[in-house]
Amino acid sequence: MSTPLKITRLDANQVDFKQHLDALLAWEGVSDKSVNERVEEIIAAVRERGDAALVEYTARFDGLQVNSMADLILDRARLELALERITPEQRTALEVAAERVRIYHEHQTQPSWRYTEADGTVLGQQITPLDRAGLYVPGGKASYPSSVIMNAVPAKVAGVPEVVMVVPTPRGEINELVLAAACLAGVDRVFTIGGAQAVAALAYGTESVPRVDKIVGPGNIYVATAKRAVFGQVGIDMIAGPSEILVICDGQTDPDWIAMDLFSQAEHDEDAQSILLSPDAAFLDAVEASLNKLLDSLERADMVRISLENRGALIKVDSLEHACEISNRIAPEHLELSVADPDALLPAIRHAGAIFMGRFTPEALGDYCAGPNHVLPTSGTARFSSPLGVYDFQKRSSVIFCSPEGASELAKTASVLARGESLTAHARSAEYRIKP
Amino acid sequence: MSTPLKITRLDANQVDFKQHLDALLAWEGVSDKSVNERVEEIIAAVRERGDAALVEYTARFDGLQVNSMADLILDRARLELALERITPEQRTALEVAAERVRIYHEHQTQPSWRYTEADGTVLGQQITPLDRAGLYVPGGKASYPSSVIMNAVPAKVAGVPEVVMVVPTPRGEINELVLAAACLAGVDRVFTIGGAQAVAALAYGTESVPRVDKIVGPGNIYVATAKRAVFGQVGIDMIAGPSEILVICDGQTDPDWIAMDLFSQAEHDEDAQSILLSPDAAFLDAVEASLNKLLDSLERADMVRISLENRGALIKVDSLEHACEISNRIAPEHLELSVADPDALLPAIRHAGAIFMGRFTPEALGDYCAGPNHVLPTSGTARFSSPLGVYDFQKRSSVIFCSPEGASELAKTASVLARGESLTAHARSAEYRIKP
Repeated sequence: MSTPLKITRLDANQVDFKQHLDALLAWEGVSDKSVNERVEEIIAAVRERGDAALVEYTARFDGLQVNSMADLILDRARLELALERITPEQRTALEVAAERVRIYHEHQTQPSWRYTEADGTVLGQQITPLDRAGLYVPGGKASYPSSVIMNAVPAKVAGVPEVVMVVPTPRGEINELVLAAACLAGVDRVFTIGGAQAVAALAYGTESVPRVDKIVGPGNIYVATAKRAVFGQVGIDMIAGPSEILVICDGQTDPDWIAMDLFSQAEHDEDAQSILLSPDAAFLDAVEASLNKLLDSLERADMVRISLENRGALIKVDSLEHACEISNRIAPEHLELSVADPDALLPAIRHAGAIFMGRFTPEALGDYCAGPNHVLPTSGTARFSSPLGVYDFQKRSSVIFCSPEGASELAKTASVLARGESLTAHARSAEYRIKP
Repeated sequence: MSTPLKITRLDANQVDFKQHLDALLAWEGVSDKSVNERVEEIIAAVRERGDAALVEYTARFDGLQVNSMADLILDRARLELALERITPEQRTALEVAAERVRIYHEHQTQPSWRYTEADGTVLGQQITPLDRAGLYVPGGKASYPSSVIMNAVPAKVAGVPEVVMVVPTPRGEINELVLAAACLAGVDRVFTIGGAQAVAALAYGTESVPRVDKIVGPGNIYVATAKRAVFGQVGIDMIAGPSEILVICDGQTDPDWIAMDLFSQAEHDEDAQSILLSPDAAFLDAVEASLNKLLDSLERADMVRISLENRGALIKVDSLEHACEISNRIAPEHLELSVADPDALLPAIRHAGAIFMGRFTPEALGDYCAGPNHVLPTSGTARFSSPLGVYDFQKRSSVIFCSPEGASELAKTASVLARGESLTAHARSAEYRIKP
C-alpha cells in the first residue's frame, strides 16, 4: 500500500476559509521574458521569409527534415485514408461524437434580423461566417481527436467555408485518430507544422499557408504566447489555463464514482484542479477513502497524486445552497451537480463553463460526446466568457437604413449631440439630411 | 484660398492597385517598450497599495490633489445634478439617443434554451449576465457622452446589476454632459480616476473600487496597454485602432454630402481613414472639388487635411459589385452604401462593422442615435469581430443532464474515445455509468 493521499480538507465555516480558498485558486499564467522574445523572433521570421522559415523551424523543433512546404501538407484524401486505418469501433465512436456535437451546435445558430419603424427607417443585424478559420492541434501526447471535433464542427456549423488545421508531427509521428477526426469534422486542409511558427503562418499567411481570420485550439506556452501576440491581426479563442472541476454532491452518489470524476480532471496535468463540496462530512471521508483505494489503479497515478495534493480539496459546506455560493465565487470550468434534484440548484448558478446535472452525468461524457463543447473558460473566466461555440465563428454587422423622414428627425438629435462633442463635421453631415 | 488638398486618387484596375491599397490600409498599433514597462509598474502598484496608489497617481497624472478616494467618488445624486445642469435641448437629445439605443439592443437579447432527447437526456444553454461591468471614459477632449450611452446601455439591457464608470477629471475639470449621459444610461457609480491606474483598479479591485468582470470603453495608449495586460483577469472589449469609413457611391448623391461624410470621419484624429469608391470618375472629381470647397469651413480643418492626405483616398472602380469586393478586402468599420438600391448590394457585403444604407443614412446618425452601437471593429477586424452588444455583457453555460439510459449509451462512446487518448480515468468515470 502506498502513502496516503494528502488532499486538502477545509470547512467553509472556518475563519480563514476565504484565504485558503483564494490560495487554492490562485493561478497566473505568465509567459516569461525569454519565451516572449523567442516567439517574437519566430513570428518576425515567418512574416519575412514565409515557407522557408516554416521548413527551417520544423526541422529544428520537430526533428523533421523536408525539402519544401509541399511535404508538410496533407489533403482530404490523406484524411480519408486515416479513417480507414483506425478500428471500426473508433470510427463509430468518432462518428457518434461528431454527429451529436453537430446537432447541439446547430441550436446555437442565430438568424439575421431587422425591424421597420413607423417612418420607414429599417434597423437590423446581419450575421455572417468568417471566411477562414485556423485550428491548432498539439502534437505528441496532448494530441486529442476530441479537440479536433470540438473546434472544427462549430466552425462548419457556422458556415465557415474553409477550416485549416495545423498539427506538428514530431519526428514524423502522425496520430491517425486526429486525422480521422479532422476528416469527419470537415477540416479542409492540414499542415503538419506546429509551435509559434504555425500560429504566425495562420495569422499572416505564407506562400503555402493561407491567412485565416481566427485561430482556435489549445497549445503549449509557445503557442499560447504566439496567439496572444497575433491577437488583433486575427481573432483568437481564450488562452486556456489548467483544467478544473468542481463537484457539488449531496452525499448520495457512490463515493467511488465521485472519486473517479475527480481523478478524471486530475489526470490532465499537474496543475489541474479537482474540488468537491458537500454538506455531508461523512461523505467527504468516504470519498477520501475511495481516492486512496483507487489511486494506485490509475495509469497516471503519479500525476494525479501531484495534482490532487497541490490543487485539490474536499470542502464541507452548510448546505447545497451554500455550495452554490462558493461555486459562483470559483466560476468553475466544469461544475458537476451530483444531487437528487439538480434543476432546483440551477437558478442559483451564475458562473460556470458547463454544468453537469445529476449522478449520471460525469464530466467525461461532456468531454467527448454529449454534444456541448469541451472548450470552456478556465481559471474563473466563466465570470465573463462562454464555451467555444458557433458564435465564435460568426460576426455581426449592424444594418441601418434611414428613410428621408427618419433621417430628418434623427439628424436633429445627432446635430445637438455632435456639437456638444465639438464634432462639427459630424453635425453638418447630419444636418444636410434635415428636410427644409 | 488655401493649398489644394492632396488626396490619393487610385483606379482599382491599375496594375499596382493591390500594393497601393495595402499601403493605405497598413496599420499596426504597437505599444512601445517604455509604455509597457510603465503600465506594468502602475498595475503592480495598484494591486499592492490599492486606494493609496490611486490617490497618488491621480495627483501626479491628473493634477488633482485629494485627501482620499472618498473625494474621487460620484454617486447617483451627483449624476442627477448633471442632468439639471445641461440645456433642455441637450437633455432631450440624450434621452432620445439612450431610448433608441435601448430599443435596438433589446433585439439582441437571447433566451436560454434546452431540448430533450428520446431517452430523457436534456441538453441546453443557460445565458446569464456579468455580475459587474466597468466602463472607461476618457477625460478632456475625447470625453464623449455618446460613448457612455453606447457602452452602458447594452450592459444594462443584458441585465448587469452594477455598472461602474471611471473618468479622469484633469485639474478637476468635469464634463457635465458625460455625467448626464451616465445618469440616463443607468451607470451605478462613478470614480473620477483614469489611465492605467483606473484599469488596474477595475481589474483587481481596491478598498473603494470594486473588481469588475469586464472592462469596456476607449482610451489612450496607456489605457489600451493596461487593458491588454489585464485581459484574462477580466474580460475586455476590442483594442480599437483609428476610426475609418468606406463610402460606396453610385455617383448620384450630392457630392457635398459625401464630402462632409468623409470629413466626419477625418475629424476624429490624424490617423482616421476616409475612403470613397465609385464607378463614376466624374463624380470622384466632383467630390474632390467639394472637399476643397468645404475644407476651410471646418473647425478642425488642419486635422482633417492631415488625415485625408495621409490616409484618405478616392478610388475609381468598375462597378458597384467591384466596389463590394474591395470593401470585403478592407472589412471597414463603417460602410456607407450611398446608392439607389442598397438592399441589392447587401448580400455581397461579407465584412463590415456597421452598414449605412442609402443617401439619407450618414455615419453620423449611427454615431449618436439611430440605435445600433457605435463601438465597432476597426482596422479590418470586422473580418472576425462584431459591434459591441448585449452579448458582450452576458455569457453562456452549457447544461447537460443525462438520463441513466442516455448516460449508459454515451459512456460507451466516451470510453472508446478516452482510451484512444490514453485518458483512462475519463474512461472509467464514464464506464461507471454503463448499465450492467
